Amino acid sequence: MNYTEKARLVKEASLQLGASPADLRNRALEAIAEALTADKETIFTANRMDLEAGKDLPRPILGRLKFDEHKLDDVVKGIRGLTGLDDPLRRVLLQRELDEGLTLTRITCPIGVIGVIFESRPDALVQISTLCIKSGNGAILKGGSEARHTNRALFETIYNAGISAGLPAHFMELVEERAAIDELIKCSDSIDLLIPRGSNAFVRHIMDNSDIPVMGHAAGICHVYVDKDADLDMAVRVIMDAKTQYVAACNAAETLLVHEDIAPALLARLPQGPDSPVEFITARGEEDYVEYLDYKMTVKTVRDVMEAIRHINHYGSHHTDCILTSDPDTAALFQDLVDSAGVYWNASTRFADGYRYGFGAEVGISTGKLPPRGPVGLDGLVTYKYKLKGNGHIVGDYASGKKEFHFRDF
Amino acid sequence: MNYTEKARLVKEASLQLGASPADLRNRALEAIAEALTADKETIFTANRMDLEAGKDLPRPILGRLKFDEHKLDDVVKGIRGLTGLDDPLRRVLLQRELDEGLTLTRITCPIGVIGVIFESRPDALVQISTLCIKSGNGAILKGGSEARHTNRALFETIYNAGISAGLPAHFMELVEERAAIDELIKCSDSIDLLIPRGSNAFVRHIMDNSDIPVMGHAAGICHVYVDKDADLDMAVRVIMDAKTQYVAACNAAETLLVHEDIAPALLARLPQGPDSPVEFITARGEEDYVEYLDYKMTVKTVRDVMEAIRHINHYGSHHTDCILTSDPDTAALFQDLVDSAGVYWNASTRFADGYRYGFGAEVGISTGKLPPRGPVGLDGLVTYKYKLKGNGHIVGDYASGKKEFHFRDF
Repeated sequence: MNYTEKARLVKEASLQLGASPADLRNRALEAIAEALTADKETIFTANRMDLEAGKDLPRPILGRLKFDEHKLDDVVKGIRGLTGLDDPLRRVLLQRELDEGLTLTRITCPIGVIGVIFESRPDALVQISTLCIKSGNGAILKGGSEARHTNRALFETIYNAGISAGLPAHFMELVEERAAIDELIKCSDSIDLLIPRGSNAFVRHIMDNSDIPVMGHAAGICHVYVDKDADLDMAVRVIMDAKTQYVAACNAAETLLVHEDIAPALLARLPQGPDSPVEFITARGEEDYVEYLDYKMTVKTVRDVMEAIRHINHYGSHHTDCILTSDPDTAALFQDLVDSAGVYWNASTRFADGYRYGFGAEVGISTGKLPPRGPVGLDGLVTYKYKLKGNGHIVGDYASGKKEFHFRDF
Repeated sequence: MNYTEKARLVKEASLQLGASPADLRNRALEAIAEALTADKETIFTANRMDLEAGKDLPRPILGRLKFDEHKLDDVVKGIRGLTGLDDPLRRVLLQRELDEGLTLTRITCPIGVIGVIFESRPDALVQISTLCIKSGNGAILKGGSEARHTNRALFETIYNAGISAGLPAHFMELVEERAAIDELIKCSDSIDLLIPRGSNAFVRHIMDNSDIPVMGHAAGICHVYVDKDADLDMAVRVIMDAKTQYVAACNAAETLLVHEDIAPALLARLPQGPDSPVEFITARGEEDYVEYLDYKMTVKTVRDVMEAIRHINHYGSHHTDCILTSDPDTAALFQDLVDSAGVYWNASTRFADGYRYGFGAEVGISTGKLPPRGPVGLDGLVTYKYKLKGNGHIVGDYASGKKEFHFRDF
């Protein structure tokens, strides 16, 4: 079967899934949680094959690739958390009588079919597929090839449990060949949203080659700005966390901006020399305002908060940026004028994450301007439609003045 | 000045505009309403030049091009309506304590700079620019060339009144050369959203050639489906309104689907022959499922509501589709499964319009799946950002288990 046909089948299933009662979707999630536990030995065996095949991979990648009892517990807990959440579908956002007998309702509905291309964390497969089930969306999943066996085992457990619980055939599909991606991104008739997670170049490739809306971020150039009246101890603690707590993450800080009045005192407190976990690089120019994803950080001195704001809006990636200050007015100015999905005051940029925002899990982080923006959880996987109910109402009567709208929300 | 530089100036102004208090934006709108009335003779004179230059244009276009006392009253009334609406900015959508002292807020903010390319109705310039002011967005406007003099006069009145009231320089710009469009659609650093209104080919050109998100619709292929137990009188009335009330509109119906059981009775009641205002064309195949924008309508007989739903989802443009039935269950099925921005029961598709939905005015209608969907008014011109406030909170403390999130909404 070719991928276009696969996508078409998921599209057809997604209509049924989207119209299904919350109860059915929750029962399927519960069945999936149980099946993952029941099938755990098969899954762990598959994971050992991936770990063995990838034994020369860098240690952090192996850590993400590992799927053990601990990760299983986490995803099962995550699924039970989802089951407990209110149904995101058929929520009435607006209810308005336009005229007697003519009623408009804006109501949430699924987006349709979501294509997610994700990295080597097999737990991502569980999170994404269960978020899609809960939100009534069909899913086409392409995981990292390093996790091929684990992904296949997880997919089979989830798919079979879902089908047994009554979800429609093809409610999700797994795609294993990298070549599939270039075919799938052309399926704008069947796929409604693409969520590519991966390198900048890869995300950019998808954005440039598909007519399908893409949710995600190409770069994560996050800033920490230290204003003149920041608490220096706090500043050092937040800078070190934002930079080093997990350098490979998109929400790790890359550039440190420092108010000139506090720069000497702050820089004296930052770790320096060969024992420092971070290399602080004094900015020479444009070429230093980059995403390192490494233990490196560009440092630039600025005259004031406005210069910091301008710098961030110009060189940043509209992801997450932070100000350290004890002045609420300066913080408010920064949080109003910095044009990013996350604008933080006295907290590490590393908090930008669906789990840490209390969304249960996330399918990705969007740096686009339109909603959904920032970490995207369940709420970001639904859209809405307008239902209008009349009893033979025609526009001619309003155009001629025979009738008039009265617009009453209820 | 080149267009890229113009866009950059609007971008810079938009930050200030977005941070401005509601009061300032409302005062500017009131000043604009007054200035339009004060400058009306200049505007009418400019409009007479356009009407004179375009005297050979088709009559409906001349009707739309005309800007007289009546249209002025309408737009001024529209502006006063906008002034009275709540501020769409800084609305708190979510407020959550993640942990002690660590507070997350999801809050509405403007999208940034919106580029709107619109047709020959000069009143559209007033509506779009005032919606952008109210929602704190910078605007770059390109109007139809037939309305060049009127647009210039309206722009100058609006711009000068806005500046006098305290809006930042370059809060909006008018662009008159068609050549500007291809330069502007490359300005993804400065323009955050494009709203092209016009022919399918034009909208498609913009979508295919810009990295900037595009809101709009390429085609408007709307359907009326008459189910077996529809009221025949109502069906004829709604079909005729949906088709003929204004054939050039995107929400005019193009295809009539009829349940086979009721087809003979319904078709007998529809006007036929040389005196009929509509030519009903029996569907031969794919080539008849098109957007006529004319007094023509394709008719297809279907076996049941499911065939109608499948037809609409396949051949439609996800704009607005209607079912005529007296059976609430069939209506519910149709409204759930038809994947369009508007799904109507016993009402004409022509109601799909921001004004008729009570939004005051619209910047356009979106057939995309992600919000904003359908007619887009003030609500659709804002996005949101996440503000996080801590007192030195770092992720390391949560990763190590030293601290735990508690997620309390307030």
